[in-house]
Amino acid sequence: MPARIGPDSRGVFIISVTPFTDVGDIDWPSIDTLVEFYLGKGVSGMTILGVMGEAQKLSDTESAKVAKYVIERVAGRVPVIVGVSHAGTDNLVHLSKTAMDAGAAGVMIAPVAGLKTEIQIRDYFAVIFKRLGPDVPVCFQDYPMGTGVSISVPAFLQLVDEHESLTMFKHEDWPGLRKLQQVRRACDGGARRRISILCGNGGLYLPQELYRGADGAMTGFAYPEMLVRVCETFAAGRAEEAEDIFDCYLPLVRHEQQIGIGLAIRKEILRRRGAIASAAVRAPGPRLDRDDIEELDRLMQRLERRLSATSTPAPGIAA
Amino acid sequence: MPARIGPDSRGVFIISVTPFTDVGDIDWPSIDTLVEFYLGKGVSGMTILGVMGEAQKLSDTESAKVAKYVIERVAGRVPVIVGVSHAGTDNLVHLSKTAMDAGAAGVMIAPVAGLKTEIQIRDYFAVIFKRLGPDVPVCFQDYPMGTGVSISVPAFLQLVDEHESLTMFKHEDWPGLRKLQQVRRACDGGARRRISILCGNGGLYLPQELYRGADGAMTGFAYPEMLVRVCETFAAGRAEEAEDIFDCYLPLVRHEQQIGIGLAIRKEILRRRGAIASAAVRAPGPRLDRDDIEELDRLMQRLERRLSATSTPAPGIAA
Amino acid sequence: MPARIGPDSRGVFIISVTPFTDVGDIDWPSIDTLVEFYLGKGVSGMTILGVMGEAQKLSDTESAKVAKYVIERVAGRVPVIVGVSHAGTDNLVHLSKTAMDAGAAGVMIAPVAGLKTEIQIRDYFAVIFKRLGPDVPVCFQDYPMGTGVSISVPAFLQLVDEHESLTMFKHEDWPGLRKLQQVRRACDGGARRRISILCGNGGLYLPQELYRGADGAMTGFAYPEMLVRVCETFAAGRAEEAEDIFDCYLPLVRHEQQIGIGLAIRKEILRRRGAIASAAVRAPGPRLDRDDIEELDRLMQRLERRLSATSTPAPGIAA
Amino acid sequence: MPARIGPDSRGVFIISVTPFTDVGDIDWPSIDTLVEFYLGKGVSGMTILGVMGEAQKLSDTESAKVAKYVIERVAGRVPVIVGVSHAGTDNLVHLSKTAMDAGAAGVMIAPVAGLKTEIQIRDYFAVIFKRLGPDVPVCFQDYPMGTGVSISVPAFLQLVDEHESLTMFKHEDWPGLRKLQQVRRACDGGARRRISILCGNGGLYLPQELYRGADGAMTGFAYPEMLVRVCETFAAGRAEEAEDIFDCYLPLVRHEQQIGIGLAIRKEILRRRGAIASAAVRAPGPRLDRDDIEELDRLMQRLERRLSATSTPAPGIAA
Repeated sequence: MPARIGPDSRGVFIISVTPFTDVGDIDWPSIDTLVEFYLGKGVSGMTILGVMGEAQKLSDTESAKVAKYVIERVAGRVPVIVGVSHAGTDNLVHLSKTAMDAGAAGVMIAPVAGLKTEIQIRDYFAVIFKRLGPDVPVCFQDYPMGTGVSISVPAFLQLVDEHESLTMFKHEDWPGLRKLQQVRRACDGGARRRISILCGNGGLYLPQELYRGADGAMTGFAYPEMLVRVCETFAAGRAEEAEDIFDCYLPLVRHEQQIGIGLAIRKEILRRRGAIASAAVRAPGPRLDRDDIEELDRLMQRLERRLSATSTPAPGIAA
Repeated sequence: MPARIGPDSRGVFIISVTPFTDVGDIDWPSIDTLVEFYLGKGVSGMTILGVMGEAQKLSDTESAKVAKYVIERVAGRVPVIVGVSHAGTDNLVHLSKTAMDAGAAGVMIAPVAGLKTEIQIRDYFAVIFKRLGPDVPVCFQDYPMGTGVSISVPAFLQLVDEHESLTMFKHEDWPGLRKLQQVRRACDGGARRRISILCGNGGLYLPQELYRGADGAMTGFAYPEMLVRVCETFAAGRAEEAEDIFDCYLPLVRHEQQIGIGLAIRKEILRRRGAIASAAVRAPGPRLDRDDIEELDRLMQRLERRLSATSTPAPGIAA
Repeated sequence: MPARIGPDSRGVFIISVTPFTDVGDIDWPSIDTLVEFYLGKGVSGMTILGVMGEAQKLSDTESAKVAKYVIERVAGRVPVIVGVSHAGTDNLVHLSKTAMDAGAAGVMIAPVAGLKTEIQIRDYFAVIFKRLGPDVPVCFQDYPMGTGVSISVPAFLQLVDEHESLTMFKHEDWPGLRKLQQVRRACDGGARRRISILCGNGGLYLPQELYRGADGAMTGFAYPEMLVRVCETFAAGRAEEAEDIFDCYLPLVRHEQQIGIGLAIRKEILRRRGAIASAAVRAPGPRLDRDDIEELDRLMQRLERRLSATSTPAPGIAA
Repeated sequence: MPARIGPDSRGVFIISVTPFTDVGDIDWPSIDTLVEFYLGKGVSGMTILGVMGEAQKLSDTESAKVAKYVIERVAGRVPVIVGVSHAGTDNLVHLSKTAMDAGAAGVMIAPVAGLKTEIQIRDYFAVIFKRLGPDVPVCFQDYPMGTGVSISVPAFLQLVDEHESLTMFKHEDWPGLRKLQQVRRACDGGARRRISILCGNGGLYLPQELYRGADGAMTGFAYPEMLVRVCETFAAGRAEEAEDIFDCYLPLVRHEQQIGIGLAIRKEILRRRGAIASAAVRAPGPRLDRDDIEELDRLMQRLERRLSATSTPAPGIAA
């Protein structure tokens, strides 16, 4: 049986893009190269069919096919989490089963848009967990900026207490550093069972999140090697050095974090790095224009200069 | 070739529910009875796979299958409009083609959530209309409360001017009486080509909307005969009588207009009236409890008493 | 000492408009006539400086002055609640003290926009109640459509348990019939102390709300005598008759319930009825145009015809 | 007459905090030190009573008093813009006149929350500009994340064409780099008159914005000297060096950019730097806890180390 996500999952679960051809079809060969790209950068896991995977623009048939294809290509080298959020619970459950049957390590679920109170969130997940059964590990995606649904720490902990298969917390409330830490302290493996906490939000606060107890990152930055190095270096006890590495890439982390066009930027970087053949985003979606391209050129060149300069660390940077 | 919607479409295009069994499967036999129920009440057309049809909870395969099935059952007796709104343009276009091939009279499209400015709305529809081609009549659904997207009258008129196949305006901005009238006056068949205007919002302001120039209703009230009689009586020049009929049902119109639970109420009334076998709403969705049921009992009984009392109109009511 | 609101407050607390002159100044003489108009219709109380009182467009100085003026004019004949919601807690507290010193019966507070979770709501009100002290009776305004803040029943009950001076619940969640009933059953004077529940939402569901345990209405319908008669008739055990009276006015209740322009309609009706001298709404605010006026003419005439027809009740209407 | 903002305004207009004492009163002596702190850092102007100035938590009387006090202290050394946005147009106009009479260089106005379409935005500003008259220079604050109101470039340009006193565009749509550039190209002083464009959003994209034609920054970063140096260095034609300076501070720019708690962080940094006596934020508002403080300690120390290391530029950093 393939690995499942669990309380000790850590490191970088890269949020994968879905590659398309220039006319918008799924680009299966690029999935191959993309998988090898991510794995080659040392990620601990992959998360597919998230918002950044444009899951909402795939047909249900495509989603199932992509899930199966990626899992097959990864072939157990790392765990694969499948995003299954859907307006309809039946569809969510159906994709979950398809994914788990294909060898997924777990599913990621955000509360459906329109939930207004914590009782409603609780009721929503009670149905979901009952339908999924106890054998599907669930990553709770806490992404209020995207879903419009906010949950307090006590309400989340109640979910943890009620549903044993709730295994992972994808933190991307913003700002949410304090929340992350409260969840960490409450789910520390002592009084309450441990859950894994990985951070989204494009990684914009990754060092701060690691200090506050995150187990790693679940985001899709187009330089996954940075995320990996930061997490590893931090885990090795060299926190300042980890943050130096992070800061070096921060201008691009921030650049990718522009809602909407950020995805087009990320895909363009992945294309330039040979991970995918086309940077196409499915409609409705942004396209980079000439100014955007030139801007990206400059930022990538600046990164390269920084990287070569810091290969022999500048004094004070990695002090 | 089956009838297409056009500038002279009028009357009641009933927004159809999608019937489910108690366990949430599509209830095909109930589609049969529902179609006959609606047609038996005299509707001029049907609109399927709207929000009230829980389209967002169907799989893409189910949507296509429902569209084809309904169109086949209606068998050309009235035009059928298919709601095709989707987060992904490809899926929208694909369902549109499926529906038109099956004999749909047109498609209904709301601007996708997330459009912020009128330029963005315009660009969004430019792609849509180009992809659909000139032969797919489009009903523009103006439903800001659901989509979060607002459009001004001038911006809408620009869409009308740029896209010949934009044929119908489903008005459900709220409040929006003035807007409806402005569109009516601008698209009167004189300076600018005429478009059909049908009103949603549960019909809550139907008489006022007819006064302001609407061609009819596109909503799903569980007593379609009221909508039909109101539109016909108004069209016959007996506006006050039309409004008397409307007011008689207004308490239930209002009762169904509760966001969320309104759909469960509507389906329960349709069930009681023999139109469908189960009032089930797919998860996540509301369920009526005992208090809700008793409340509905009282309101339906009150309506019956009113209807029998006004069969010989009370003085002053239909003066 | 003037009467305070308490667990047994019931009947109609009319939400008062704030009268302006045509150029937008506060129209003090119209406050005089308006107060007498409301009291003449039999209201049990008044609520001033709510959203419909355009409180957010008054200066702080004006708010204080209006509060004091109205309280003085009412002169203890009925309790007066003062809306004190404000983005800044200091201002909220300051106006509360001014109002209570002037003889207000209590203050009305909605959770400030931007609160995302129930913990945040709880913390917000903990500060408020501490600052106000135990002697200021508070009406909690539950108006998610206006504030963007939703609260579940358990979270509200926790507020009730923690703050003795939380005395009244203004229900205007929508849809919210079930919520109202849950609060009623939980705060029934048995296991938990009783609180008063009055309903807003323009009164659109008043009969249903009374059935579910509301103590009355807190809304601003321009025919307060209807609200009063409905509440009194229902309290006298003649529920069906109460609903007949309500239904007679329902077309206008619904007409006033249009967000934005509804206030201009309400003020115009009040003007026609002699309650205020001008229907002016402060900028930014809606103005009625000729079509709106003619529409209102028709609706008011229809109401008058109905009222005269039902003065000898038609068979079946009040059966 | 004091300087007015105009088409050639450029550089850094610092968004000023409003200093409070620990108990929440306005801290007038800290206004003195804060003004000198900002001016000492070389800012070109000041903007007071913005969102970050907690204007919405001041009473109207306090707002007027703060405006007059700051303007008096600045004493014409740099232009002072006063934020006057308010739910009520009368209050907006009144504060504008007070500010201009006291010697303000202009006022800043965001579209009021609740405007849904571009026609409504246009109508809103038509009233505002008429009420203000031609002699009050206006900075349009484009802040959809805060106001919920979006405007397209054509709609904004129409405002520019219709209102000669619209002089400045505060860009803080996000993402909005392309929008900024479109406004710049359209208002270049050629075909259309020039307007000044200053950027908000905490400065998170300042170098990119300068490349795209911004005239400077209008934000409140607690190290104003960075903003000043970046703008000056860029204006001197040394774009890469400007961006090196910026990147050095980027971790803190990002840290302050957390909605809500970012203001508490900013005030704490200003306190540590001697600009104000207390970091207090008025209720409802965030407070830093021990973890937040330690996190800030680390980030500030990292900045100091970087600054001392780059005082002799590391190779590749300022290449």
